[in-house]
Amino acid sequence: MSRQLWVNARIATLQAGAEAPYGLVEDGALVEEDGRIAWVGPRGDLPAALRAGAVEHDAQDALITPGLIDCHTHLVWAGDRAGEFEARLKGASYEEIARAGGGIVSTVKATRAASEEDLLAQSRRRLRDLLAEGVTTLEIKSGYGLSEEAEAKCLRVARRLGELEQLTVRTTFLGAHALPPEFKDRSDDYVDAVCAMLPSLHAQGLVDAVDAFCETIGFSAAQTRRVFDTARQLGLPVKLHAEQLSDSGGAALAASFQALSSDHLEWLSEDGARAMAAAGSVAVLLPGAFYFLRETRVPPVDLLRRHGVPIAVSTDCNPGTSPCTSLLLMLNMACTLFRLTPEEALAGVTRNAARALGLADRGALAPGLRADLVLWDVQSPAQLAYALGANPVRSTYVQGRLR
Amino acid sequence: MSRQLWVNARIATLQAGAEAPYGLVEDGALVEEDGRIAWVGPRGDLPAALRAGAVEHDAQDALITPGLIDCHTHLVWAGDRAGEFEARLKGASYEEIARAGGGIVSTVKATRAASEEDLLAQSRRRLRDLLAEGVTTLEIKSGYGLSEEAEAKCLRVARRLGELEQLTVRTTFLGAHALPPEFKDRSDDYVDAVCAMLPSLHAQGLVDAVDAFCETIGFSAAQTRRVFDTARQLGLPVKLHAEQLSDSGGAALAASFQALSSDHLEWLSEDGARAMAAAGSVAVLLPGAFYFLRETRVPPVDLLRRHGVPIAVSTDCNPGTSPCTSLLLMLNMACTLFRLTPEEALAGVTRNAARALGLADRGALAPGLRADLVLWDVQSPAQLAYALGANPVRSTYVQGRLR
Ligand SMILES: [Zn+2]
Ligand SMILES: [Zn+2]
Repeated sequence: MSRQLWVNARIATLQAGAEAPYGLVEDGALVEEDGRIAWVGPRGDLPAALRAGAVEHDAQDALITPGLIDCHTHLVWAGDRAGEFEARLKGASYEEIARAGGGIVSTVKATRAASEEDLLAQSRRRLRDLLAEGVTTLEIKSGYGLSEEAEAKCLRVARRLGELEQLTVRTTFLGAHALPPEFKDRSDDYVDAVCAMLPSLHAQGLVDAVDAFCETIGFSAAQTRRVFDTARQLGLPVKLHAEQLSDSGGAALAASFQALSSDHLEWLSEDGARAMAAAGSVAVLLPGAFYFLRETRVPPVDLLRRHGVPIAVSTDCNPGTSPCTSLLLMLNMACTLFRLTPEEALAGVTRNAARALGLADRGALAPGLRADLVLWDVQSPAQLAYALGANPVRSTYVQGRLR
Repeated sequence: MSRQLWVNARIATLQAGAEAPYGLVEDGALVEEDGRIAWVGPRGDLPAALRAGAVEHDAQDALITPGLIDCHTHLVWAGDRAGEFEARLKGASYEEIARAGGGIVSTVKATRAASEEDLLAQSRRRLRDLLAEGVTTLEIKSGYGLSEEAEAKCLRVARRLGELEQLTVRTTFLGAHALPPEFKDRSDDYVDAVCAMLPSLHAQGLVDAVDAFCETIGFSAAQTRRVFDTARQLGLPVKLHAEQLSDSGGAALAASFQALSSDHLEWLSEDGARAMAAAGSVAVLLPGAFYFLRETRVPPVDLLRRHGVPIAVSTDCNPGTSPCTSLLLMLNMACTLFRLTPEEALAGVTRNAARALGLADRGALAPGLRADLVLWDVQSPAQLAYALGANPVRSTYVQGRLR
């Protein structure tokens, strides 16, 4: 049995219901055993028996938080949309860009054409930016393959990223992301195809959850329901891209399937919030997309607070609307743009992000949970949300092992 | 004589008037001799005589740009305003924060109280974030000391940062930044004091330029003029915080002193733009402050283009309104929020930023200029502005020396 002890640390436990903001313990101690947290609390209360035989680390006044969790990304894609970004800034319209082969279709084309190794290499570079900021658990959606073969390739790459780097990857099948060109004007047929892909992908062990893009420019509520019915038959949890551009009632629909989360939610109604609260769905806010698309309608944060809907925050890392690989930047944007408090934002990338992934074994620092830790060179947790562009990570531990 | 050669690179020379966007040379070569660029162009055109005896670097298909220049920062301060950020998000008003000792006064207090070594250490951490992104030239303003002694301390720290790290630091005296508490309701007296400090600070070799905060909540145009008159007597160039919150006519006033730049400019008038163009002043845009303050009025970029005013982009790194240490993030914000093109944004942190500092020996890759280079792991220059939170720096060279 291995045992490690950290002392000389301020520890933001992020435990739910803790009395101190952030669950903060000044002059704290944390004990890890076999990859799990054995004890955390004020140093003075540390039982002598736990100190004995432990490898002791002087945290040198670092702040310790749970490892960060990015619970909504589309990290695996091939190709480059910077040229499209540039064209738009030079005055090209969306139509002109689409005619020139741009938009999501270009990402689908490049992702389908890429070899699995190339897709892995391109995605791994993005992953490393996230890892550098202390991310220890990451969700990755498919949705740029849009055929069974290409979706499988993307999900395999996601799984391999989790094996190659020291972190947990949770995969989400998002076949209902966009309509592939070969199904033009036949969206119901494509939803049939999506429902047909799922059992096989699941049988290959590639799917941890199922997502859809429920939107006027995406899939209808009825189509989303068919995808979710298929997921339910397979015992897979669901989540939804909902209420980003309009109130389509997606959050309530997802809640009726006990969705893990509904994500975006700029147009969420009070009924939707009530349904989410009743179902225990997490609201995943994505300020990067809001910023990048220059949206003006912010998610109804007060409504979420009032109904007690847990709030998570994520990068939405994707090439079209949030080419973002900094979860710390999202903390700042969640505060600056959406007016979360720094404590809400930090809970949104730890405790509530874990919940959005259905992971009960992490997201806070408490006995029995995984010893996924980040040591930060900051004075206070609020500095993590306040700073723009700093990376104060000193070290990251995954299940007690230095990464 | 030392000579180095880079091949296998795409080179964004950022030369003014180049035909290709970004002055881009595909399959380029660059020769450095004794810290200067000796030759740059298509590899096929490289004279054999220059290749002979050169240390050859394979850039492995990197993009090479000039070293980045951050031409407007308040990098040197002590203390922490994250708590204030948090209090505001919890609902505290500006008045409540001021009553609790927050705001700029708290930074002045902490900066005055800090030892020179402590101030250096705190500032150096921020500097390192900027260096990690390829910054090779940096402007640092005083303005949190507000007494001759404390201003001198800040400017000495700025100079020492330039000696300790491998970059050029240009210092700017910003005594007219805010009214120190001991001059409450006596702003004219304080401007007297500022004018009195300047000759001595200049005699100590601490001042490269002089700045002021001309604003309804700062100093009046008449007061700014007195500071600039003093600067002119000493032969020091001026620049101005102008038209950030209102149209105070600051840009035209600064132009009448041949200001290097006017900065912020959200409220710039057409007369102001015309005056800037005639004086050759650079417009320094600061999207970080715009974002952090949730401003809604963007600088009149089209007006600047129409009048041919060169545009620079900078972090405005400061604890109150832009706690930002990422110049790459500012590229994205300049494009996303202010609608600059990626090429304009990149020129804004190279060629035009050099001009904003009065430095004719850098900011582009051309024979005779300093060999300050960054090698980037990107396919196209636009990716530098498109990505949010990535840091694709592969290596940075200052006067030809690897940093
Ligand atoms: Zn998404
Ligand atoms: Zn400033």
